[in-house]
Amino acid sequence: MANLNNGNGAYGSVIERVTGQLCEPGSYEGVYHRPKHEQPMPSLAALEEVMERLKAVLFPGYFGNSEVTPETMRFHIGANLDAACRLLVEQVKRGFCFVCPRDEQRTCAECEDRSQRISQDFLERLPGIRSLLATDVDAAFRGDPAAKTPGETIFCYPSIIALTHYRVAHALHHLGVSIIPRIITEMAHSRTGIDIHPGAHIDENFFIDHGTGVVIGETSVIGRGVRLYQGVTLGAKSFPKDEAGMLVKGQPRHPVVEDDVTIYSGATILGRVTIGRGAVIGGNVWLTRSVPAGARVMQPPGQREALVEGSGI
Amino acid sequence: MANLNNGNGAYGSVIERVTGQLCEPGSYEGVYHRPKHEQPMPSLAALEEVMERLKAVLFPGYFGNSEVTPETMRFHIGANLDAACRLLVEQVKRGFCFVCPRDEQRTCAECEDRSQRISQDFLERLPGIRSLLATDVDAAFRGDPAAKTPGETIFCYPSIIALTHYRVAHALHHLGVSIIPRIITEMAHSRTGIDIHPGAHIDENFFIDHGTGVVIGETSVIGRGVRLYQGVTLGAKSFPKDEAGMLVKGQPRHPVVEDDVTIYSGATILGRVTIGRGAVIGGNVWLTRSVPAGARVMQPPGQREALVEGSGI
Amino acid sequence: MANLNNGNGAYGSVIERVTGQLCEPGSYEGVYHRPKHEQPMPSLAALEEVMERLKAVLFPGYFGNSEVTPETMRFHIGANLDAACRLLVEQVKRGFCFVCPRDEQRTCAECEDRSQRISQDFLERLPGIRSLLATDVDAAFRGDPAAKTPGETIFCYPSIIALTHYRVAHALHHLGVSIIPRIITEMAHSRTGIDIHPGAHIDENFFIDHGTGVVIGETSVIGRGVRLYQGVTLGAKSFPKDEAGMLVKGQPRHPVVEDDVTIYSGATILGRVTIGRGAVIGGNVWLTRSVPAGARVMQPPGQREALVEGSGI
Amino acid sequence: MANLNNGNGAYGSVIERVTGQLCEPGSYEGVYHRPKHEQPMPSLAALEEVMERLKAVLFPGYFGNSEVTPETMRFHIGANLDAACRLLVEQVKRGFCFVCPRDEQRTCAECEDRSQRISQDFLERLPGIRSLLATDVDAAFRGDPAAKTPGETIFCYPSIIALTHYRVAHALHHLGVSIIPRIITEMAHSRTGIDIHPGAHIDENFFIDHGTGVVIGETSVIGRGVRLYQGVTLGAKSFPKDEAGMLVKGQPRHPVVEDDVTIYSGATILGRVTIGRGAVIGGNVWLTRSVPAGARVMQPPGQREALVEGSGI
Amino acid sequence: MANLNNGNGAYGSVIERVTGQLCEPGSYEGVYHRPKHEQPMPSLAALEEVMERLKAVLFPGYFGNSEVTPETMRFHIGANLDAACRLLVEQVKRGFCFVCPRDEQRTCAECEDRSQRISQDFLERLPGIRSLLATDVDAAFRGDPAAKTPGETIFCYPSIIALTHYRVAHALHHLGVSIIPRIITEMAHSRTGIDIHPGAHIDENFFIDHGTGVVIGETSVIGRGVRLYQGVTLGAKSFPKDEAGMLVKGQPRHPVVEDDVTIYSGATILGRVTIGRGAVIGGNVWLTRSVPAGARVMQPPGQREALVEGSGI
Amino acid sequence: MANLNNGNGAYGSVIERVTGQLCEPGSYEGVYHRPKHEQPMPSLAALEEVMERLKAVLFPGYFGNSEVTPETMRFHIGANLDAACRLLVEQVKRGFCFVCPRDEQRTCAECEDRSQRISQDFLERLPGIRSLLATDVDAAFRGDPAAKTPGETIFCYPSIIALTHYRVAHALHHLGVSIIPRIITEMAHSRTGIDIHPGAHIDENFFIDHGTGVVIGETSVIGRGVRLYQGVTLGAKSFPKDEAGMLVKGQPRHPVVEDDVTIYSGATILGRVTIGRGAVIGGNVWLTRSVPAGARVMQPPGQREALVEGSGI
Repeated sequence: MANLNNGNGAYGSVIERVTGQLCEPGSYEGVYHRPKHEQPMPSLAALEEVMERLKAVLFPGYFGNSEVTPETMRFHIGANLDAACRLLVEQVKRGFCFVCPRDEQRTCAECEDRSQRISQDFLERLPGIRSLLATDVDAAFRGDPAAKTPGETIFCYPSIIALTHYRVAHALHHLGVSIIPRIITEMAHSRTGIDIHPGAHIDENFFIDHGTGVVIGETSVIGRGVRLYQGVTLGAKSFPKDEAGMLVKGQPRHPVVEDDVTIYSGATILGRVTIGRGAVIGGNVWLTRSVPAGARVMQPPGQREALVEGSGI
Repeated sequence: MANLNNGNGAYGSVIERVTGQLCEPGSYEGVYHRPKHEQPMPSLAALEEVMERLKAVLFPGYFGNSEVTPETMRFHIGANLDAACRLLVEQVKRGFCFVCPRDEQRTCAECEDRSQRISQDFLERLPGIRSLLATDVDAAFRGDPAAKTPGETIFCYPSIIALTHYRVAHALHHLGVSIIPRIITEMAHSRTGIDIHPGAHIDENFFIDHGTGVVIGETSVIGRGVRLYQGVTLGAKSFPKDEAGMLVKGQPRHPVVEDDVTIYSGATILGRVTIGRGAVIGGNVWLTRSVPAGARVMQPPGQREALVEGSGI
Repeated sequence: MANLNNGNGAYGSVIERVTGQLCEPGSYEGVYHRPKHEQPMPSLAALEEVMERLKAVLFPGYFGNSEVTPETMRFHIGANLDAACRLLVEQVKRGFCFVCPRDEQRTCAECEDRSQRISQDFLERLPGIRSLLATDVDAAFRGDPAAKTPGETIFCYPSIIALTHYRVAHALHHLGVSIIPRIITEMAHSRTGIDIHPGAHIDENFFIDHGTGVVIGETSVIGRGVRLYQGVTLGAKSFPKDEAGMLVKGQPRHPVVEDDVTIYSGATILGRVTIGRGAVIGGNVWLTRSVPAGARVMQPPGQREALVEGSGI
Repeated sequence: MANLNNGNGAYGSVIERVTGQLCEPGSYEGVYHRPKHEQPMPSLAALEEVMERLKAVLFPGYFGNSEVTPETMRFHIGANLDAACRLLVEQVKRGFCFVCPRDEQRTCAECEDRSQRISQDFLERLPGIRSLLATDVDAAFRGDPAAKTPGETIFCYPSIIALTHYRVAHALHHLGVSIIPRIITEMAHSRTGIDIHPGAHIDENFFIDHGTGVVIGETSVIGRGVRLYQGVTLGAKSFPKDEAGMLVKGQPRHPVVEDDVTIYSGATILGRVTIGRGAVIGGNVWLTRSVPAGARVMQPPGQREALVEGSGI
Repeated sequence: MANLNNGNGAYGSVIERVTGQLCEPGSYEGVYHRPKHEQPMPSLAALEEVMERLKAVLFPGYFGNSEVTPETMRFHIGANLDAACRLLVEQVKRGFCFVCPRDEQRTCAECEDRSQRISQDFLERLPGIRSLLATDVDAAFRGDPAAKTPGETIFCYPSIIALTHYRVAHALHHLGVSIIPRIITEMAHSRTGIDIHPGAHIDENFFIDHGTGVVIGETSVIGRGVRLYQGVTLGAKSFPKDEAGMLVKGQPRHPVVEDDVTIYSGATILGRVTIGRGAVIGGNVWLTRSVPAGARVMQPPGQREALVEGSGI
Repeated sequence: MANLNNGNGAYGSVIERVTGQLCEPGSYEGVYHRPKHEQPMPSLAALEEVMERLKAVLFPGYFGNSEVTPETMRFHIGANLDAACRLLVEQVKRGFCFVCPRDEQRTCAECEDRSQRISQDFLERLPGIRSLLATDVDAAFRGDPAAKTPGETIFCYPSIIALTHYRVAHALHHLGVSIIPRIITEMAHSRTGIDIHPGAHIDENFFIDHGTGVVIGETSVIGRGVRLYQGVTLGAKSFPKDEAGMLVKGQPRHPVVEDDVTIYSGATILGRVTIGRGAVIGGNVWLTRSVPAGARVMQPPGQREALVEGSGI
């Protein structure tokens, strides 16, 4: 590495100059977020640890210590809960700081109190979250002929990872936490290819087979016993803008999927439509209107393929 | 963090209460798997290390120590093999415990012996696995105009990662190992978006370009020289249930893809159909029946798009 | 683990034999890459650290130290730049060695010098890369009704991760670096499901929503303000072979997408076609020809679905 | 690193040859210990973790999680106990294997059972060990004018570290564990310079100030309220040999130090002598005979120094 | 590990019972320190990181990044300073909490403010600390015939490590920080065998050769250019107690050592005596009174050894 | 942490100012070592890894992988040797750079070649180093009545750690390596309290019991079968200075200790004296002259203690 340390300062002056450019306020405008009160930013590493510990709490033995038994479970669960909650309080507070408006009257101490209350409230919801996840595990086991035991779905099915992150994030979202829920679901998106917005409502017994490419938008509502396959999109159809040309945010704009619906791979359903109870949506279908309960919607078979027999490549 | 440690015990009692709820047998029923003989669970961390070491064995220099040379290769390979095998024996045993039926007569010592025999048998298959992977590397190199050297495909192509996990997992599956093979392929699914069931049969010279969203089901059979693109599904069409309404597991229900077939992106092939030798399946095709050798199956061109010229958004 | 150490040498002889087989030159032919001059191979771990540090440089506070402030930013950025550059010089050199032809006349010292020059040149491009990424962040924020702040898109949007890797890799590719750029974009592909070749040209204000399954090929050209959704492919249509039957590499063979084009999920565009300024390509469209500016291309509505009302499953 | 990989095999053949020499049985004779039944060796890393966890159990908040409170203490202690015990069982077994005589009739299964029984018995002794350590903390606080709180002695006094390792090791030694207790006290010796053999008997309220260089031999007996300073040796005077010229092992050969004795820095006491209750042994004294209760033994003042006034250097 | 998980709950009930015993308030009385306001305890791991970063600041290139150069030094130093200071503020606050009296009127917010002020004041002292350490490095180089360069003493001399910890801890002690300074000097004691109380005053150009066993008490005062060898004690002679029988704390009770004194190995100097400028104290001398400037104090030669020629062992 | 980020720049300006002061050339003069050719400094972390790997090579099973067996030993030893050697080459080169005189004519390439040759030569000496260490293990076992097996001394005796570092460092020192040998022995000093200069000559069968405080100077010569106890110093008596007042470096100035000598705890032997074969030096003896073979030198018994019976404290 002779030249980097070549003593004539060339390398040093490059580092100096580039650093200077990157630190000019005009340069980091737009990518550097300066929170009010100069609080630190949410930490991805801390949130990773929170989720690792919560997974060990929700699925003892599968995640975290693999030698936990019913006799010693309470110690491991309690220790993980305590550690996760302490990390979470700090991150929830940082989340509030991240979006704290310039004209906010609330003090940092108020946000700290609020973060503590929310984190404790969140803990209280964990038994309910586990109950829901138990129905998801059951749905995965019953829904896949390749699964030999329910436990196998916890170890091997991206659906369970994605739903664990989603159900945790959804509870935090519901408690009013800022940005942290989105980070938590994006962690699962990165690992599974399943992108569920924490604002979506998903009832029990939900299963996504294979999962890569699934998108479930912010205002989606999904009933009990719904099953999706890979590549399904529950998306928005259009994005109304306000007079200033900015997107109007937060409007219901994603589908309602009623109980016991099955949606096969690659299907796309857009807009605030309703898929009626028990309906089946076929693979690759593109749907922008409601369908009644019990309906079957398929690509017209003739449109799917044109066979040209005997042709070489 | 004043309130968490506020000395009035509020926080402590929340942790206590939630832990208690999460440890009631009724609560963890369905998500906690209690193996027979109270053996520990498979460990994801241990299996990650097994795969890291096996990749360093199969592709010396690419994974593990990047400074290995032919002169010193044997030491690094031998050391990694030994360490991987010791970890694997324990995990294979835990896999057996995980599915050990309540009425099993076999002792733990028998499972331990079996795990040792299987792990040694698995080692013996590694040279063959490497030979197969070498054909896959060759297929990737020859199949992609963007690849400059075969080695580049090992470093940069998700196909090679996915096939390495699959070929290892398939060998373990074939030796009768429980659950561990599924965990190993799911690791690759998480990293590559390519979901190959360890039970599938895949012959040499296989290549998946880009790969995200590919699904290859449990009973698929794939010949030599087959090439897939991203988003291809080789899936099951229907799931026969038994009289109790439970899915019948293990039946042949995925496609047979013969030698030299090419399947373009987004195509979906469902059921125990046969795609004849040398056939080409076009992008986005939805196929639920067999096609003869040499056939070309495409979406009917007219169905793909409707141009509305000049319209604004 | 009684039998592995059983003293009769059975286990030891298996390790010995399998290691021997895996070290026979014929065995690693095809998977072991022996660089000229016996230089070490590129290291994935080192490149991971390079990217972690560059992300901390480009998005201070989001990645790396979460407590950075404008007052102390310059120190953290300078320290990360220096450390990243030192690692990069070594990896760039290893990249050259990786593809060094057997008849190369250049010495290792020349490659080392070249690696240093290139790495310094690369540093100089970082401010420009950040400016581009700032436009991408803005595009993500303006493009998604669910985004509350621009900063949220840096934390939570796979688009930003994928573009950060791409823009870094593209600069290195442009400077003539071998193989390293492909490894860097594949890291992002693994994490986001978005596969962008470092050779593609992408102008400012680019946004990919959700992103899983997107493929952008080596010779694609993308204008300003383009927006893609998940599952979009910008691919090649055919692969001309030379007389020896080998693929001809490096030819323009992917689409040109002009400014302000939107391409909805699952659309596939193949070949050196041009999508005119402001055009909108609908979901799942399969397109192999050019379309004029302002055009809207949709799947013919009637082809998308066939409703069979009232049918049960 | 051109030459190491110089392709002419010189480096490779050196590695090969040296490895070969180091693996000739004659070479590792004397330094490689081959246990009966080919069991693995005790692991220093595992024993480090055992001690880290036990310290977190014995001194909650000081070691391990620094945020433990009385409300959540039970979870952290229980989780650490469980994890420490599981590691300990394995290491205790390996300790037995390490010394297993060639003509041993006991099976490995018997040693495993014994390791489990001993480890559980050891757990039961932890409350008693903590009671003893609490008296040691009290002695340290009362004995040093520089200590502001008892807690300060836990954080800052090598005496407490050394006694924690000793009291744990002594309990294991008393339960018949092989070699592991010595490894545990040597860990403390390395960190504190205080070398206490696990076989020594030390009663409550023991304090060693500063500590570096203290040696307390295998058969020492120390009463209540004893205080030592740095550099004190309680050693053996002579080493009787048997007819074969080998040292006779295990005989009482170190001092008995009765209650409330103080021994100042650098004093050396050798052989099975008794230092009577309340005696004070001055600094640098060399003592090989018993002294009565209440005695003061000092270096004769005139022997300590010869002043040569006014001399330069 | 059959029995630990034997399903009859024996192991679980042991863990449960022992944990219960260890959590009874009476059990942890004396070893568990419950700070006022329930604040967390100082963290040894955080303080280790503080010292690692400060050493990288004070001795760039020797500790931390070994590739720092004058051109890039400022970035690495600034980044380490910032990170160290943020960690230190929290630990200083925890130190105050650790000793916060039950009747304290000060609020936690006041302690937090004070911790921030102190930590910034401490930063301002670092240039002065480095100047002092530079004189210590010079003293070590000039004092040891075996040293080839001054830099060698930074890498290899325990004296420099011990003085770095001491000079940092002394500055914090002087700023009124509780307990943290003692933890910092004890870290160095553990690594070097040199035990310096942070309250001692040590002027420039100080050198301790070899160092193991050196003890320098709380109220010691050491002038310029003093040199010590291993095993030297500067201790207290007696410990006056108050009427309650408790030791009176904080009184001057250790030696004053004037400029240019040399004290050879194993010498013990006790009490508030003065060793005059330029004096030389010989090895193993035991001294409890003052000596004038320029004096040489040696063990009387005849007292040191008694030769018994020709005797065997 | 409100104030640190208080937005008024106070904290930032402190960091800025202190960093500036610490980066003024005048400030780091004396503590920053600027090597010729601007090469990086030796890395303590890299040298720690070198020693960990060499210990695993020299004592297989005790250090590194605890599951190594004779059957697989060669792989682990070869892999550790290769990795250690590659690290060592770089560190040896950095050691040369560290002391490279300003008027040096040698090029960096020459130093690199020399580092490679030396490192390979060093490898060739490892079998001899192990043979010597095997005699040290034997000496430790035979010399301590508390040792139950030779293996126990490898796990538990600081003597073996210190000698392993010394024998490695001595070989490097003998091959002309700069500074690295001193760093290696200081690592052992830190862990064991035994300070052996790499320049000392120590023959086989050497044992140091307990060890804390032992110092063995640069030009010491120690024969076969010598045994030392804790606190023994083999030091220099005087330090001749040259006309410029600088110490004359490198002269023989430490004792010669012939075969089979025993030196008890706390003895100090200074200067180029000879302790004749088989002599015994008693505890705390201070010796500055030679003694003949077979002599016994003891403190005069009457000088050691003055008993003041019955006195209280």
